[in-house]
Amino acid sequence: MVKKEAGRRLRAQRRVAAAGADAALVTSPANVRYLTGLVSSNAAVLVPADGPAVLATDSRYAGAAERDCGGIELLISHSVEPALARAAAERGVRTLAVETHEMTVERYQELAALPDAPLLVPLGRVVEELRMVKDETEIAQLARACAITDQAFGDILAAITPGRTERELAVLLERAMVDRGAEAPAFGTIVASGPNGAIPHHVPGDRAFEPGDLITIDCGARCGGYHADMTRTVALGHPEAWQRELYQLVADAQRAGVAAATPGAGIAAVDAAARDLIAAAGHGGHFQHGLGHGVGLEVHEAPIISSGGTGTLVDRVPVTVEPGIYLPGQGGVRVEDTLVVREGSGATGSAELLTTTTRELLVL
Amino acid sequence: MVKKEAGRRLRAQRRVAAAGADAALVTSPANVRYLTGLVSSNAAVLVPADGPAVLATDSRYAGAAERDCGGIELLISHSVEPALARAAAERGVRTLAVETHEMTVERYQELAALPDAPLLVPLGRVVEELRMVKDETEIAQLARACAITDQAFGDILAAITPGRTERELAVLLERAMVDRGAEAPAFGTIVASGPNGAIPHHVPGDRAFEPGDLITIDCGARCGGYHADMTRTVALGHPEAWQRELYQLVADAQRAGVAAATPGAGIAAVDAAARDLIAAAGHGGHFQHGLGHGVGLEVHEAPIISSGGTGTLVDRVPVTVEPGIYLPGQGGVRVEDTLVVREGSGATGSAELLTTTTRELLVL
Repeated sequence: MVKKEAGRRLRAQRRVAAAGADAALVTSPANVRYLTGLVSSNAAVLVPADGPAVLATDSRYAGAAERDCGGIELLISHSVEPALARAAAERGVRTLAVETHEMTVERYQELAALPDAPLLVPLGRVVEELRMVKDETEIAQLARACAITDQAFGDILAAITPGRTERELAVLLERAMVDRGAEAPAFGTIVASGPNGAIPHHVPGDRAFEPGDLITIDCGARCGGYHADMTRTVALGHPEAWQRELYQLVADAQRAGVAAATPGAGIAAVDAAARDLIAAAGHGGHFQHGLGHGVGLEVHEAPIISSGGTGTLVDRVPVTVEPGIYLPGQGGVRVEDTLVVREGSGATGSAELLTTTTRELLVL
Repeated sequence: MVKKEAGRRLRAQRRVAAAGADAALVTSPANVRYLTGLVSSNAAVLVPADGPAVLATDSRYAGAAERDCGGIELLISHSVEPALARAAAERGVRTLAVETHEMTVERYQELAALPDAPLLVPLGRVVEELRMVKDETEIAQLARACAITDQAFGDILAAITPGRTERELAVLLERAMVDRGAEAPAFGTIVASGPNGAIPHHVPGDRAFEPGDLITIDCGARCGGYHADMTRTVALGHPEAWQRELYQLVADAQRAGVAAATPGAGIAAVDAAARDLIAAAGHGGHFQHGLGHGVGLEVHEAPIISSGGTGTLVDRVPVTVEPGIYLPGQGGVRVEDTLVVREGSGATGSAELLTTTTRELLVL
C-alpha cells in the first residue's frame, strides 16, 4: 500500500514540472504536514519535478519523522531551508520554486545568497490548491471534529444564564470539546453577547449575560489536525421582534448559501445567494465579511467564498457558510455551518452538512 | 499622563531616524501590540522618523482600536500594508523600512509594485530590541503569569499517578492555569514521560505513567499577553541512582546558569556556566539546545541564550534558564525557570526568579 502522502507528493510533483521548475521547496507548515505527515515547527520538503522527495527537520523532530514519515528521505538539520537548497543544487536543480506567500524576505534572501544557489521562482499556492479537495479520510476527520463541536455546544447550553460571563462560557465550551475527544479547540472561541455581538471577531471578556441578550458563539474542535467551524446565535430570555426578524433573515440567508454550494457553482454566485437576501432587506452594509472559507489542516484555507471570489466549487470541498448581520452598538447574529460540497445527491449534487446543531433560534 | 505605548513609539522613532529611513512600517503582530496596545491579526503601524504615527487595521478591529489605542491616528482598511505605504508616500516618505524578518516575499513585492512606492529597506529587529528590556508593568504581568504557573503546577501534582496519561495531565494543568486566572496557556504544555523524556519537544500522547518514570513537564500561563515558561522533571516512585544523578547534574547546571545571569554578563558566558558542568560530566552531546531565551509578548524572543550568542544581559531583561539532558531511548531531565536580570541586589546584581516551584527532585 502506498501511503497517502506519497500520492500527494506525486500530484505535487506534476505541478512542479508543469510550472517549469526543477524542484519546489515547500515550507508552509500545513503544506509540509500534508505532503509528509510530519507535524513540526521547523521542517521543509524538497519536491523535485523528477525523482524522490526529501524531508528536512531538526533533531527535536527526528524521532517523530522516522516514526511517522515512511518512504521519504530524511535530512536532519537545524537550518532546514538552506540544507534543502544545497541538496537541491547538488542534485542539479537550477530553478527552485519557493512559497513566496509564506517565506519571509529574510529567509528568501538567505537562500538567494547561498553559493551555487538555484534560481528562485514563485511556486504559488500549488499545494494549497491540492489541499482544497479532500479525500474521504480527511472528510471523516473533519466530520468527527464537527460532531464533537455539536456535542460540546449541546453540553454548555444549560450554562448560558444571566450573570455568566462571555469568557467563562468560552472556557466551558473549549473544555467540553476536549472532554468529547478534540485534540484542541480549532481556534479561540468567540462568545459575543448583547452589544458585543456587533463585533464579528469579538474576544470574550468579562461582560455578564443579561436577559434580552442575543449571544453569538463561534467555535470548533480540531481532530487529527482538521478544523471544525460553527456559529450559532442564541437568545437569553424572550427575544424582541427585531431580534427574531434579524435572526430569521440571517438563517434564511444561510440556508440559501448552503443550497447554492453545489459542484460547479461559481464562488461569487454562492456568496450572492446569501448576500442578496440580506441586501434586499436593507442590511447589505451590516454584512461586511465574506460568506465563508475552506477548512482543513488550517481553519481558514482555500477556497475563500466572497463577492469578489473566482473559480467554482467541486466535489469533496469542505467549506463554511456563515452570513452575519452586525448592528453597531446594538448586537448581531451569525449562523455558520461546516459542510462538504458533494456530487450526486439530487440532480446537481448538494451540500453535506457536517455541523448539525439546530438552526432554529434557541431561546434559553 | 502619556500612555506607555506613546513612549515606546518615541523610542522606535529615534531608531528609524538613526537607520536613515524616513519611516518604518511595523507589521509583526507582537510589535504592533507593543507600539499601540492593539491585539489584532490584521494590523500595522507606520512610525515616521518625524511626525505622528498611524495605526491601520480592518473594520473587525475598529472598535477595539478606538477603545484601546488613544493618541494615535487610525486608518481603517482591509489591506493595511498597502494603505499605510500609500499614506507614507503622501506624507513625503521616500525610504520606508520594513520588517523583512516577518514580511513575506509576496507582501513585500505587493508593496514594491505600488505606484509611487517608497524605496523599501530592511528595518531589522529594532522593535524586538526595544522589547527586550521590560518596564515594571510588564515585569508585573510576567510575574503574575509565573505565579499562576507555580500554583497550577502545585494543583496537579497529586494527579501524577500510575496509569494517568501524558495528555490527561497536560489538559489538567492547562485547566488549572486558566482556573487560577491565566487568559490561556502560553504554549502547548509538554508532558514527556519515561523514554519520551528524551524528546525535548515531545507532544503529550497516550502513554500512561509507570512507576519508575521520570516525567518532564514544561508549561506556562499567559497574562495580559505575557508568557511564563517553567519546566520541572519529577520522579514517579523511588528513583534509581542514575535518575537521581542525572537530575542533580541538571539542577546544578541550572543554578549555575541562573547565578551567571547578571547585568553585563556575556550571553555565551551564561550559556557556558551551565553547559560546562554538563559537558564535564560527559553529557555535552546530550544537551543540544540553547540554555534559554527572552520571554514577553512572545514565548520565545530576544535575547536567545546559546553558545554562539553575542551581546550581554542588562537590567530588566526577563529570560529563561533551562538546561536539559536527553538520553535516547532512556529518558531525560530539564529544569527551567523564568527570571529577570536585575541591577543592584548584591555587588553585581543578580537574577530575580519569577517561577519559584522547588528545584529539589520531587518524588511522587
